[in-house]
Amino acid sequence: MELKNLRVNGKRLQSTLAEMATIGATPGGGVQRLTLSDADRQARDLFVRWLKELELDVTIDEMGNIFGKRTGRDNDLPPVMSGSHIDSQPKGGRFDGILGVMGALEVLRTLHENNVETLRPIEIVDWTNEEGSRFAPAMVASGVWAGALDRDWVYQRTDIHGKRFGDELQRIGYKGQAPAKKHPVHAYYEYHIEQGPILEREGKRIGAPKGILCLHWYDIYLEGEANQVGPTPMEGRHDALCAAAEMILTVNRLPDKMGGNMVATVGEIQNYPNSRNIIPDKVHFTVDIRSWDDDHALRAWKDLRKDFESIAAGRGCPIRIEETWRVAHSPFDKKLVQRVLDTADALAYPSLYMVSGAGHDASYMNQIAPTAMIFVPSIGGRSHVEVENTRWEDCEAGANVLLHCILQSAGEAAED
Amino acid sequence: MELKNLRVNGKRLQSTLAEMATIGATPGGGVQRLTLSDADRQARDLFVRWLKELELDVTIDEMGNIFGKRTGRDNDLPPVMSGSHIDSQPKGGRFDGILGVMGALEVLRTLHENNVETLRPIEIVDWTNEEGSRFAPAMVASGVWAGALDRDWVYQRTDIHGKRFGDELQRIGYKGQAPAKKHPVHAYYEYHIEQGPILEREGKRIGAPKGILCLHWYDIYLEGEANQVGPTPMEGRHDALCAAAEMILTVNRLPDKMGGNMVATVGEIQNYPNSRNIIPDKVHFTVDIRSWDDDHALRAWKDLRKDFESIAAGRGCPIRIEETWRVAHSPFDKKLVQRVLDTADALAYPSLYMVSGAGHDASYMNQIAPTAMIFVPSIGGRSHVEVENTRWEDCEAGANVLLHCILQSAGEAAED
Repeated sequence: MELKNLRVNGKRLQSTLAEMATIGATPGGGVQRLTLSDADRQARDLFVRWLKELELDVTIDEMGNIFGKRTGRDNDLPPVMSGSHIDSQPKGGRFDGILGVMGALEVLRTLHENNVETLRPIEIVDWTNEEGSRFAPAMVASGVWAGALDRDWVYQRTDIHGKRFGDELQRIGYKGQAPAKKHPVHAYYEYHIEQGPILEREGKRIGAPKGILCLHWYDIYLEGEANQVGPTPMEGRHDALCAAAEMILTVNRLPDKMGGNMVATVGEIQNYPNSRNIIPDKVHFTVDIRSWDDDHALRAWKDLRKDFESIAAGRGCPIRIEETWRVAHSPFDKKLVQRVLDTADALAYPSLYMVSGAGHDASYMNQIAPTAMIFVPSIGGRSHVEVENTRWEDCEAGANVLLHCILQSAGEAAED
Repeated sequence: MELKNLRVNGKRLQSTLAEMATIGATPGGGVQRLTLSDADRQARDLFVRWLKELELDVTIDEMGNIFGKRTGRDNDLPPVMSGSHIDSQPKGGRFDGILGVMGALEVLRTLHENNVETLRPIEIVDWTNEEGSRFAPAMVASGVWAGALDRDWVYQRTDIHGKRFGDELQRIGYKGQAPAKKHPVHAYYEYHIEQGPILEREGKRIGAPKGILCLHWYDIYLEGEANQVGPTPMEGRHDALCAAAEMILTVNRLPDKMGGNMVATVGEIQNYPNSRNIIPDKVHFTVDIRSWDDDHALRAWKDLRKDFESIAAGRGCPIRIEETWRVAHSPFDKKLVQRVLDTADALAYPSLYMVSGAGHDASYMNQIAPTAMIFVPSIGGRSHVEVENTRWEDCEAGANVLLHCILQSAGEAAED
């Protein structure tokens, strides 16, 4: 068989994903496989067993990242790497993360059963704690591996029960010996569900994101004046929740006001004393602004901050603002992104050049190696929820694109 | 001394209040004396000791209400009753409730030391659990006593730790033998801080509320669609928190829109999943509407409900509305209210005819006996907070009004 006619086994990919979805399955049809939980261990054990069936060289590093290396004809050349994450959100879906790991596994199985030899070695990877929902922040293990974060700082992160990342990694038996330290990578491909509605809306099967949006996080603290609601006239009130409500709507209108590429969201709010007959005197809420254009996001924040201060003054509610976190936008390798689009074309899958609104381990890999991602549609754009879903034929299509991107990169000789 | 020249001992009232304020004192200068807590027991013990020093006939009923009866010349005549409550909000103030009990005590001490005899007996009362903040709802013990609530239903109320009202009443030793059952009362006076800013703003020392506002409570439940914020465009979102924010501001504007006497407040909100990078898909919040005019409040709710439904439809967020609780406005006895005003005039205290926005045990007493209240100013209108404060000279003035109102009512012969 000519290599260009090679295809993954869609049925096998489906049953592999289905088997993984039984680990941490929730009654609502999703999975809860929090990082370093027993469900995470169980899924890792199964993954490692599958890697060994392919006679891969399995390495577990000190961050719990799992690598499986398939030898090439020239193992001195930097490998092609692909993977994603096995962990999930609480009450998350059956595709986020795991599709990229099982997709890469299906590629390796396809090469294995067809006895395909590549010039470069190929490495599959499961990155620990991409979600960051048990131990904040997200993507820490690819971050340490890429040299952007400190291992011991991550070890000290605690979950809401006070358990430490390092202890839990040890407990589930995945604190490996290998240093979590980057080695040269020729190309990194991450296959993932889109987690948004664009591909479905546009009728496309494959998305090739040009990169990941910038991400700016803010924390807003408002003070009001608590009083019994009955005897306190409306005039003269300092209602911190009303001030917050005005601000939430201002955030919601911000992308339309600023134009261009942008989303802005308030996802979290705490209200005190949160009693139905006391005027709220303390509110905390978060702001999340994302854009392809870092400067545009900063201009939007400057505008928003002015609006916040004016609303706070109008309500007589002192405001404190924390500029919590800023990650610049991350443009992927142009050549690899074009390869994803060309490969989709060659396979006759309608494709879309787009952006990624969500962060991925590909962000950190993009700092140290040529990187691209392959997206497939999320039904109804739903993600981080139990009803998260993707058509099996789309899962297969994405894996075929991944197969041929890997084959091309793995066949590339050393550049001079 | 002529009776009309009789005055309470302001210094003694001050030191009595100061001693009570040490029980459950908070670092912030307030008190935390939750109903049926150890602090409540300690305050009750002190109160009972003080009642016995006046040779009063002390009765504790099966709701833990404490009565102290001073005999009159004709003990077959229904007594004049006065009191309030010893329990407090969590992190509450040093005056809410306790002023009315210590004020009535000061009146009895003044009568005692001056050997004043009255025609009718006088009864002082501490009502259990006025606040309702540990065991909801509020004012249950005056409610049972007045025949409006069922004793055993109240016994079964639980706090957030699952402890039952009946068990806690037993535990602190205040589950008495006497039935909690109304007897005829000639007049009920409740002396209380205003808990609002009106008296201070108007420069008055004594408030005579014509009654208590109606109180309508609603619970609103919104559903949105949870999604990862980054990849989900603004258009097509169903953000339940944005819908709630619009509704909160609509509630805040309602009194101005409707005109007339009205306050409207959102005090409580819960947001789910309350994660900074997930669009909120569930919000619950409360609405509290109060007015002197029950029909006006109902018209306002009808208007608000229409706005809520239109906001919910506009955001594509299904809404569920619970009409949780409605208490009609409670007009006090006209003759007694006028007596409060006249007595303030006679004592040369500037007074104001007003309304009470807050509920009081006087609401239930008003159902079974001629009732009036006496208000004194809250500094800055602050209440249900640790900085709650009232000038000592105002505390004294209110107690003098209470003294002379009680004297007049206690001197009234039986009507034919």
